[in-house]
Amino acid sequence: MAVLGENRYGKAESRVVRIVRDTPRHEIVDLNVSSSLRGDFDAAHVSGDQAAVLPTDTQKNTAFAYAKLHGVSSPEDYALALASRLLEAAPAAAAAEVRVEQYAWDRLGQHAFARRGGDVRTCEVTVSRSGASVVSGLKDLVVLKSTGSEFKGFLVDEFTTLAETDDRILATSLVARWRHDTTDVDWNASFDDVREVLLSTFATTYSRALQETLYLMGSAVVDTMPGIAEISFSAPNKHHFLVDFSGFEVDGLTNDGEVFIAADRPYGLIECTVLRDAPA
Amino acid sequence: MAVLGENRYGKAESRVVRIVRDTPRHEIVDLNVSSSLRGDFDAAHVSGDQAAVLPTDTQKNTAFAYAKLHGVSSPEDYALALASRLLEAAPAAAAAEVRVEQYAWDRLGQHAFARRGGDVRTCEVTVSRSGASVVSGLKDLVVLKSTGSEFKGFLVDEFTTLAETDDRILATSLVARWRHDTTDVDWNASFDDVREVLLSTFATTYSRALQETLYLMGSAVVDTMPGIAEISFSAPNKHHFLVDFSGFEVDGLTNDGEVFIAADRPYGLIECTVLRDAPA
Amino acid sequence: MAVLGENRYGKAESRVVRIVRDTPRHEIVDLNVSSSLRGDFDAAHVSGDQAAVLPTDTQKNTAFAYAKLHGVSSPEDYALALASRLLEAAPAAAAAEVRVEQYAWDRLGQHAFARRGGDVRTCEVTVSRSGASVVSGLKDLVVLKSTGSEFKGFLVDEFTTLAETDDRILATSLVARWRHDTTDVDWNASFDDVREVLLSTFATTYSRALQETLYLMGSAVVDTMPGIAEISFSAPNKHHFLVDFSGFEVDGLTNDGEVFIAADRPYGLIECTVLRDAPA
Amino acid sequence: MAVLGENRYGKAESRVVRIVRDTPRHEIVDLNVSSSLRGDFDAAHVSGDQAAVLPTDTQKNTAFAYAKLHGVSSPEDYALALASRLLEAAPAAAAAEVRVEQYAWDRLGQHAFARRGGDVRTCEVTVSRSGASVVSGLKDLVVLKSTGSEFKGFLVDEFTTLAETDDRILATSLVARWRHDTTDVDWNASFDDVREVLLSTFATTYSRALQETLYLMGSAVVDTMPGIAEISFSAPNKHHFLVDFSGFEVDGLTNDGEVFIAADRPYGLIECTVLRDAPA
Repeated sequence: MAVLGENRYGKAESRVVRIVRDTPRHEIVDLNVSSSLRGDFDAAHVSGDQAAVLPTDTQKNTAFAYAKLHGVSSPEDYALALASRLLEAAPAAAAAEVRVEQYAWDRLGQHAFARRGGDVRTCEVTVSRSGASVVSGLKDLVVLKSTGSEFKGFLVDEFTTLAETDDRILATSLVARWRHDTTDVDWNASFDDVREVLLSTFATTYSRALQETLYLMGSAVVDTMPGIAEISFSAPNKHHFLVDFSGFEVDGLTNDGEVFIAADRPYGLIECTVLRDAPA
Repeated sequence: MAVLGENRYGKAESRVVRIVRDTPRHEIVDLNVSSSLRGDFDAAHVSGDQAAVLPTDTQKNTAFAYAKLHGVSSPEDYALALASRLLEAAPAAAAAEVRVEQYAWDRLGQHAFARRGGDVRTCEVTVSRSGASVVSGLKDLVVLKSTGSEFKGFLVDEFTTLAETDDRILATSLVARWRHDTTDVDWNASFDDVREVLLSTFATTYSRALQETLYLMGSAVVDTMPGIAEISFSAPNKHHFLVDFSGFEVDGLTNDGEVFIAADRPYGLIECTVLRDAPA
Repeated sequence: MAVLGENRYGKAESRVVRIVRDTPRHEIVDLNVSSSLRGDFDAAHVSGDQAAVLPTDTQKNTAFAYAKLHGVSSPEDYALALASRLLEAAPAAAAAEVRVEQYAWDRLGQHAFARRGGDVRTCEVTVSRSGASVVSGLKDLVVLKSTGSEFKGFLVDEFTTLAETDDRILATSLVARWRHDTTDVDWNASFDDVREVLLSTFATTYSRALQETLYLMGSAVVDTMPGIAEISFSAPNKHHFLVDFSGFEVDGLTNDGEVFIAADRPYGLIECTVLRDAPA
Repeated sequence: MAVLGENRYGKAESRVVRIVRDTPRHEIVDLNVSSSLRGDFDAAHVSGDQAAVLPTDTQKNTAFAYAKLHGVSSPEDYALALASRLLEAAPAAAAAEVRVEQYAWDRLGQHAFARRGGDVRTCEVTVSRSGASVVSGLKDLVVLKSTGSEFKGFLVDEFTTLAETDDRILATSLVARWRHDTTDVDWNASFDDVREVLLSTFATTYSRALQETLYLMGSAVVDTMPGIAEISFSAPNKHHFLVDFSGFEVDGLTNDGEVFIAADRPYGLIECTVLRDAPA
C-alpha cells in the first residue's frame, strides 16, 4: 500500500524588485525569490484537506511585503527574515526554506540603472524549529585562462583518443555554494571576499586539471575565511577546441593557440566540495 | 586546513543519435547522455595527478561506441551497460552514474521521422562495486484540467489574499522519477505502463489541490506496478488566472471559466514522494 | 536634424487560454498573441503626447476579450477579428498586425488534456484601411531523414575541407510561412493540408541538398494548394556528424551510418521562398 | 507553376574565440559569427546541382581562418574582410552578409578573464559587387529608471482599464542598430560613443512614454554622431507592476513606489527608427 514520503511545497521565482527612494539617489535591489515549507502536510496530500496549508500565493505575498517590512540589506538577511516569518505562520511546518538570486545593477544616475549581467549572487536559507543555516553562493561566473592550463598523464583505455596537452584554454561557468558556521556574518562583505578569493586564485594558479583548480579555489576560501565551513562547486568544463588549420591551403597559416571554437555540448562537468578539516 | 569532500566528474549532454539500418525500415534512437564517476580521485584534485582519471572525453567516446557495441533497446538497458563499462575502465571509481534523456520521434516513412515533442523519457542508473540501481522517469509532461479542480479551506494569515475557488484550471509540467526494486524489468513496457497510469489518474480524479493529485497519481503507480518501490514528483503549479472582464464596458460580457492568462512566474512548486509501505 | 522614421508599437506574447465549456466535453485553445499598430504616432515619440496611443495594455485586454466575444475557430480567424478591432479603436493607426502561435493539446478525457509538443502553428495577419493579408505557418517542425540525402559536387576553395557524401543524415527544425491569395479560406483544413504536403514531400523525395528539399516542399505546396501564393522557409541544417570510431582499439567496430553526434552550433541556415509563377 | 524566389544560405553561430598572445599579456576576442550568400543559386534548389555553392562548412572554416589571417581589431573590420572574402570565393554570389556578436570579457590577470555579461555588441555587414554597408549595434542592454517616468493622456476605449500614472518604473532590454554613412570609421570608438550617448540620454531625460525616450535617445545619437545615418530600436517594455499591499492586514504598510513585481509576459514592444533629415 502506498504512503506519503518526503514532501515540500512553495512558491518559486517571485521577481521582487525593491526601490529604496528615501533620498533622490535611489537604490535598486533585484531578486528572484523562492520559498518552500516542509513538515506535516500529509492531510493535504492524502485526504485533500488544506487546513494546514499556507497557500503558495501567501508565501509570494509575504516575500513582497517583507521587501518593505524587513528590507533587503543582503539576500541572506532578507531570506532569514522571510523564512522565519513563513515558519511562524505555518504551524504544521517543521522548516522553511528560502532561496534568493540577486541580479546586480550599475548606477547610471540618481534613479537610472543598467543591469550588470555576469554572475548572479545566490543564497539558500533554511530555518527550522531548532535553528537556521545559510548557504551563500554565486552562479554564472564565466572565467577563462588562455594559457597556464595542461591536461596530461591521465588514464588511457581502448576508447581514449584525447591527446595530452600542456597548453589549452580552461574555461568554466562556475556555480559555487558555501556554508557558513554561523548567521552572525556581514553578508555583503563576506560575499565580496569569497568572490575575490575565487577570482584571484583562478587567475594566479597553474592548472593541471579543472579538478585541481577548483580544489585550489576552494582551499583558498576555506583557509582564509574563518566563518566558512565548506564550499561546493559545480563547474562545466566549457571546451574550447583549437581549430585545425592544417587542411587549409594557405602558405604559412598556423594556429599556435590563437583560434578556438567554443563548443556547447557535450561538456565536462566537475563537482567537488572542499571543507575545513576538523582539528584533532 | 582544507580537505577534499564529495566529488565526481564526467561528461554531460553527449547527443547520441543511433540509426538502426539493418533493413530499409530504419529506426532512430535519440539520446542525451551524461555520465560521471565517483571514487578515489583525490590526487587529481589535491596534487594535480591525473593517473586515475579516465578523461571525460573517453567517457563521451564510450557513450557513442556503446550505442553500437551494446545498442539501445531501452535507455535503462543502455545506461546499465555504459555505467558498468565505465566502472570497469576506471579502477579508482567506486560508482558510475549514467543519466539519459530520450526524445521520441514519429515515423514519416521508411527512413524519415518527425520529432514528437512533448514529454521526455529519462533514466538515472548507478552502478557501484556492489550492485546497480535504476530510476526511470519522464519530464516536461504538460497536463491540464479545465475543471474538476478546487482549492479551498486553506490556512489564512494577514498576508493571505487568495480567494477560495471550487473551479479552476489545474496545470503542471510534470517531472516524475520512479525507483525500481530490481533490474530485471521490461523497461519499455514498464515506462509505457507508468505513463499511462499517471495520465489516466490525472484525467479521471477530482483535485482538491495539486498535492492531492500527485499523491493519487503516485499511489496508483505504486499500487499497480509491483516492481516500483517509490515515485517522486516535482510539479510546478502552472497558474492560469481567470481574466477579469469586469472593467470592460461591453454589455453582457462575462468570463465563466472561459478565458485565462497562462502565467510564467512565479509558480507554485509541489514536490513529493510516494512509496510502498513495508509490510509489518 | 533627427526625424522619426518607421515605427510601431504593441503588446507581445499575451498567453491567451480559451476553454470552451458549453458541454461537459471541453475544448482548449492555447495561444500566444502579439499585436502592434502602425500609423501616425509621431506625437507620442516627438512631443510625448499620448492622445493617439491605444495603450498596449488595452491591446492585451482586447486580445483576451476577443477570445470570448469573437471566439477562436482558428488562429487566422481570431487574428483577423482582433486586428480589425484594434484598427477601428485606434484612428491614428494605418494598420494593425496580429501574430498568433497556437500550441496543440491532446485529449485525455472530458476536461483533461496533455500538451502535444512538437511544431507550433503560427499566423501573421495585417489589417490596413485598404484590406487584409494573412500569412499562415508553422515552426519547430523537426524532421530527419536517416538516408536518402547526399551533398556533393560543390564549389571548392582553399578553405574547403568538407568531404563529399552520398549518404548523410538530413535534419532541420523547419519554419515555414505561406501567404494566402484571399481571406476566404477554411483555415484549419488549409493548415492541415499544407503540413501534410510538407511532411510527405520531405519523406518521399531524395535530397541533393537542403536547398533542393526545401524547393521540392515549397513547389508541392504551391502546385497543389490553389489559394497559396507563396511559401517561405527558414531551415537550420541541424548537423548530425558521423562519429569517428577509427581511433578505438576494438576489433570489428565500425560505424556505417549508425552512430551520430547531434551538433548544436554552428549550423547551416537555408532560407528561400517558392512562389507561383504568374501566367504569361 | 512554382518558381524560386528570394533565397540565401550560410553558416550561423560559429563561436570564434581569438586569443592574441604576442606578449605575455594576452587579449581575448569572443565572437559569434554568421555568414550568408545571396545570388544566383537557383540550380542548387531547382536541379540539385551544387557546383556554384560554396559550402556552409567552408564559410565556417573561413570565419575561423580570418580570425588569424586578418585578425579582429573590431567586429566591423573583421566582418568586412570576411564578407569580401566570401563574395570573392563564390562567383555566383551577388552579396555576402556577415553578422557578428561580440561578448566582452574583463581582465583578471595576464592570461585570465571573466566574461562581463550584460549587453552584447553586434554588427551586420553586407558586401555586394557594388559596395559595402555596415550596421553596428548592441542588444541585451537592460536599463531601468526608478522614477522620472509617466504614462498618461492616452486613448481610452471600452477595453481600457489601465490607470494613468505619473510615477512608474520604466525598464527595457534594448536592441539598437545604427547604420553608418561610410566604412571609414574608428569602429571601436564609434561604438563606445553611441553606447555612452544612449545611456546618458536614458539616464538624464524625463519619460512620457518609452516611445519618447527612444526618440530622445535616437535623436541624441543622430545629432551628435555625424557618420551615423539612422538608428533603429526594438525595445520591450519590461513591465514592473507595483505590488498591491492594500489587502494585507498590517498596520501602516504602504507601497509608495518601493516594491514591484517584474513581469515576464506579456510585454509592450516599441520599435522605431530615427534618421537624419536630409538637407533641403
